[in-house]
Amino acid sequence: IALAFARPSSTARTTPAVSKVCREMSSTAVEDTMAAAPETTPESFEDTSSAYRDLISKLRTVTQLQRASAVLSYDQHVFMGNSERTVASRGAQMSALAGLIHEKSTDKAIGELIETASADLASFDGATSDEARILEITKRDYEKNERIPSELAGRKAALSSKANAQWAKARAASDYSLFQDTLKECFDMAAEVATAVRGENTDVPLYTQMLDEFETGMPASRINELFGTIQEALVPLLTKVLQSESKPSVAPLNGHFPIKAQEELSREIVTALGYDGDHGRIDVSVHPFTMSFSPADVRITSRFSEKEWYQGVAGTIHEGGHAMYEQNLNDSGLSIDSALSLGCHESQSLFWERHVGLSKPFWKWATPKLKASFGDDFGYSPEEVYGAVNNVTPGFIRVEADELTYPLHVILRYNIERDIIEGKVDIADVPKKWNEMMKEMIGVDVEKDSDGCLQDVHWSMLAIGYFPTYLLGSATAAQLAHYIKKDIPDFDEKVEKGEFSEIKAWLTNKVHRHGQRYKS
Amino acid sequence: IALAFARPSSTARTTPAVSKVCREMSSTAVEDTMAAAPETTPESFEDTSSAYRDLISKLRTVTQLQRASAVLSYDQHVFMGNSERTVASRGAQMSALAGLIHEKSTDKAIGELIETASADLASFDGATSDEARILEITKRDYEKNERIPSELAGRKAALSSKANAQWAKARAASDYSLFQDTLKECFDMAAEVATAVRGENTDVPLYTQMLDEFETGMPASRINELFGTIQEALVPLLTKVLQSESKPSVAPLNGHFPIKAQEELSREIVTALGYDGDHGRIDVSVHPFTMSFSPADVRITSRFSEKEWYQGVAGTIHEGGHAMYEQNLNDSGLSIDSALSLGCHESQSLFWERHVGLSKPFWKWATPKLKASFGDDFGYSPEEVYGAVNNVTPGFIRVEADELTYPLHVILRYNIERDIIEGKVDIADVPKKWNEMMKEMIGVDVEKDSDGCLQDVHWSMLAIGYFPTYLLGSATAAQLAHYIKKDIPDFDEKVEKGEFSEIKAWLTNKVHRHGQRYKS
Repeated sequence: IALAFARPSSTARTTPAVSKVCREMSSTAVEDTMAAAPETTPESFEDTSSAYRDLISKLRTVTQLQRASAVLSYDQHVFMGNSERTVASRGAQMSALAGLIHEKSTDKAIGELIETASADLASFDGATSDEARILEITKRDYEKNERIPSELAGRKAALSSKANAQWAKARAASDYSLFQDTLKECFDMAAEVATAVRGENTDVPLYTQMLDEFETGMPASRINELFGTIQEALVPLLTKVLQSESKPSVAPLNGHFPIKAQEELSREIVTALGYDGDHGRIDVSVHPFTMSFSPADVRITSRFSEKEWYQGVAGTIHEGGHAMYEQNLNDSGLSIDSALSLGCHESQSLFWERHVGLSKPFWKWATPKLKASFGDDFGYSPEEVYGAVNNVTPGFIRVEADELTYPLHVILRYNIERDIIEGKVDIADVPKKWNEMMKEMIGVDVEKDSDGCLQDVHWSMLAIGYFPTYLLGSATAAQLAHYIKKDIPDFDEKVEKGEFSEIKAWLTNKVHRHGQRYKS
Repeated sequence: IALAFARPSSTARTTPAVSKVCREMSSTAVEDTMAAAPETTPESFEDTSSAYRDLISKLRTVTQLQRASAVLSYDQHVFMGNSERTVASRGAQMSALAGLIHEKSTDKAIGELIETASADLASFDGATSDEARILEITKRDYEKNERIPSELAGRKAALSSKANAQWAKARAASDYSLFQDTLKECFDMAAEVATAVRGENTDVPLYTQMLDEFETGMPASRINELFGTIQEALVPLLTKVLQSESKPSVAPLNGHFPIKAQEELSREIVTALGYDGDHGRIDVSVHPFTMSFSPADVRITSRFSEKEWYQGVAGTIHEGGHAMYEQNLNDSGLSIDSALSLGCHESQSLFWERHVGLSKPFWKWATPKLKASFGDDFGYSPEEVYGAVNNVTPGFIRVEADELTYPLHVILRYNIERDIIEGKVDIADVPKKWNEMMKEMIGVDVEKDSDGCLQDVHWSMLAIGYFPTYLLGSATAAQLAHYIKKDIPDFDEKVEKGEFSEIKAWLTNKVHRHGQRYKS
C-alpha cells in the first residue's frame, strides 16, 4: 500500500520523533498547542521583503508542477491503458516534468533569495513563526538537493529503474540469485547518496542518514530502542494468542460479495468517517493508494475481491485516513503545509483502520450496513464480525499480515537493512537471515524467496530506511488513540453511533492543520 | 463538439487550401504522393548539427509539457469534481504549466538555434526534406510567438476568461445586451492580436490573418468563393428537400435505450471502424471531445440520452474519426507530426460520421447490432434507420443541425464575423443580422438570443475565424469520399460487410502519416 503524494516544493521530509510529537499532544498541553497554532496571515512580511515574495512564488510554481505530475501518475495507475507504447509515452511526459521540477527547485536564484529573505526577516519586527519556519525548511531542502550532483541523481534514477525490473524478474522466478548483484548495487547507491547528503557531518551514522530521508530526525539508535521494546513485548504475546483456545471464526469474512455492493459500502463508510467526496474521488486500482493534487482534490483507490469483503473495506478506510490528512492541510502550496513525515501519514491511516475500524463499537455501527449491502444471507452478529476481522494468523507476507504480526515483519526488514549498511550482514546471506528471523519471530517456514526476501518492492526502488516508518506510524496511531480518548471520553459511544465528526476534527486540530510547523 | 489536442511544440497551425490538398490526393497522383512520403531517418543531419539536435530536444520538451497539460485538462473534464476549490486548484496547476510552456517555447535560445541549424542545413548534403520543413515550421511559429508581447498575451487571456463568464451569464438570461460590450472587446482584441501577428504584411486583410490562426493559408477571398458556391447550391436544394413529399420517419431514433447498451454498441462500432482501444479510452462527458496525449494514448468522450440513441452513436463515430487521425500520426513529438489544420481534423471526423455513418451500406451492417443491443423491440429495417438518421429538420441550433442545414449555420457566422472585422456590421446589430439571415437561409424565426447569436462559445473565447473550419472540414470530407471511391471501387460493399480496415489505411496513407509535411 504505497503512498504517492504531490509533495509541495521539496523532496526532503521533516519528521519529529514520534514520541515527542505525541507528548506535545497530551491533553494537558492542548492550550499550549492551540496557542502555538499557525497564523496564516504573513502578508506583512511578504509585503516588505521582495526576496521572500519571489521565493514563495518560485516554491509555489514547483508545487504546482509536482501536483501536475501527480495527476499524470494517478491517471496512469487508474485510468490509462498499459500497452508498451502508451506507458513509454507517459514516461516521457513524467520525465520532462521531473526535469523541469528539478531545474526549478535547484534554481540558483532560490539559494540567493533564501539568503536575502533570511536577512530581511532578521531585521523585521512582527513576523509570524511561520515565516522563519518556511525559510528553515526551504533552506534545508535546497541545501540537501545541492549536495546531490545531477550526475548522481541521474545514476540513482537509472539504477532504480533497472533494479525494479530485475526485482520483478527475480520475484517471478522466485530466485534471489537473479537479484543479488543488483541489490548490492542498490545498497551501495543508497550509501553513496546518504554520504553525499550527510556531507561533513560524518558523525551521523549512515543508516540514520538514510532514515532521515523518510522520517527526518529519527535516528537508528532511537528506533533500536523502540523496536526492541515492541519486539520484546510482542513475541510472547503472539505466542500466548496463538496458544489460546479462544479462536474467532473467520467465516464472516468469506462468501460471495458483489463488487458493486462492496464499493458502495466502502464509499458510505469512508464518507461517514469524514472523507470529503466532493473534494476527491474513489477509484479501483491494483494496489490501493492515496494521491493528493491539492487539499481540494485528494483521491483514494481500493481493490475488491468477490470472495472476501474485508480487504476492500479495510483498504478504503486505510486510504481514507491518509486522504483526510491531505484534505485538511492548509493549502498554502508550501512545504510547511505538507505532511510531517511518512510515519505520521501512516499514523492517520492506521488510526482509522485499527483504532476505529477494528473496534467492537465500530462493528456495532457497521454490521447492519453489511447486512444492507450483502443481503439477509449475511447473518453474523457485530461480535462475530469483530472477532473475524481481529483474527491473528501468522503468514509470510507483510501486506497481508494482521495487526499483531505486522510489526514483526517490519522489525525483521529493519534489522536486515540496518545490518547490511553497518557491514554486519552480507548481501549474499539475506535469504538465510530472512528465513531464520521469520521462523524465530513469527514462527513460519519460508519455502521460497518470492514469499520471503523478494516480496517487497522497496529496496529495488532504493527506499532503504523506509520500512521503519510503517511501524512508527503504527505506534503513533496507538498514541493518538490513547490521547484522543482522554479528550473525548465517550469515544466508543460516538463510534458506535457513527458520530465521527468530532474525532476527525480532533485529528485535524492536533495533527493535520499543523503541517510541518513543529519539527522533531 | 470542441477539439482539444495536445499540439506539439507550437501554437500556430499550418494548413493547406483544402481544395489543393485534395487535388494532390487524386488517384492519378497516388504514386507521386507516395514518392514524396516522409522519410523518418534524419539521424545523419541530427548527428552533424548540434544546434539542430539541441533545438529538437527543446521542442520535444515543450511537446511533453503540452501533453501533460492535456492530461490535466482531460481529467478535469471527465473525472474531476467540480467544486469551486477543486476547479481553482486545477486552474493553478494548468496555469503554472502554461507559464512554463510559454517560457520554454519563447526561449531566446530557440531563435538562435533555428538560425544556426538553418545555416548548418544549408551547408549539409543529404538532408531529408523533413529537416527543412521542421526548421520552416519552427521558425514560423517562433516568430509568430515573438510578435505577441507577453503583455498582450496576458490581456488576451484575461479578456477570454472574463468574456466567457459574461457570455454564459448573457446566454442564461437570453439577453444579448449583457454581452454586447464584452463582445466588442473580444473583436477588438482579436483585431489587435491579428495586427501584431501580421506585423509589416499590412496587405494581408485582417480577417484573413485571423483565419490563418485556425486554417493557415486559407484567405477570406477563397472562402468567400467557396462558401458562396455552397450557399448558392444548398439553399434551393434545402427548399426542394423540405417541399418533398417523401419524408423519412424519425421513429427509429426514439424510444427507450439503456445507456449501458448504447455505450457498448458505440464502442463496438468505433472499434470496428479502426479506433484502437488499446491506445486510448472512451469516456462520457457533457460535451463529446477527443484528446490526444500522444499517438499511443488518444481518448474520446461521448454522451448518451436514454430517449434517443443516434446522438451517442454519431458522437462516438465523429470523435472516433478525430481520434484515428491522432492515433496514426508519427510520434516524433514535433509539429511536423501534428494535424495539418482544424479543417483537416474535422474532415476526418465528418468522413466517418457522414460518408460512412450516414450511408445505406453502413446501416445494413449496423442495424442488426442495434437489434442485438436494444432487443427485439427494435424492429426497424436498415432502410428505415438510414432514412431516419438522414432526416432534414431546420432548426436554430448549429450543433443539432443535420448535414444539409449545418453549412448554412457556419456560413451565417462566417459572414457576420467577417463583416464585423471589415466594419460593415456593427456589434449592436448582431442579433438583428443573425435573425434575418436565419430566416433567409434556413427559414426559421429565432425567438430568443440564447437560440440565436448567444448559442456558441467561440467568440467569447476570442476564436474569431474558427467557424469556417467546420465547413472546410465538411467539404474536405466530401472530397476524400470522392477520391477514396476511385481508389477503393468496392467501398460500399466493404462498408456493408463491416470491412473498414482498408478505408482507415487509405486515410492514414493519404492524410494521417503526412502530418504537416505538405503546406498549403
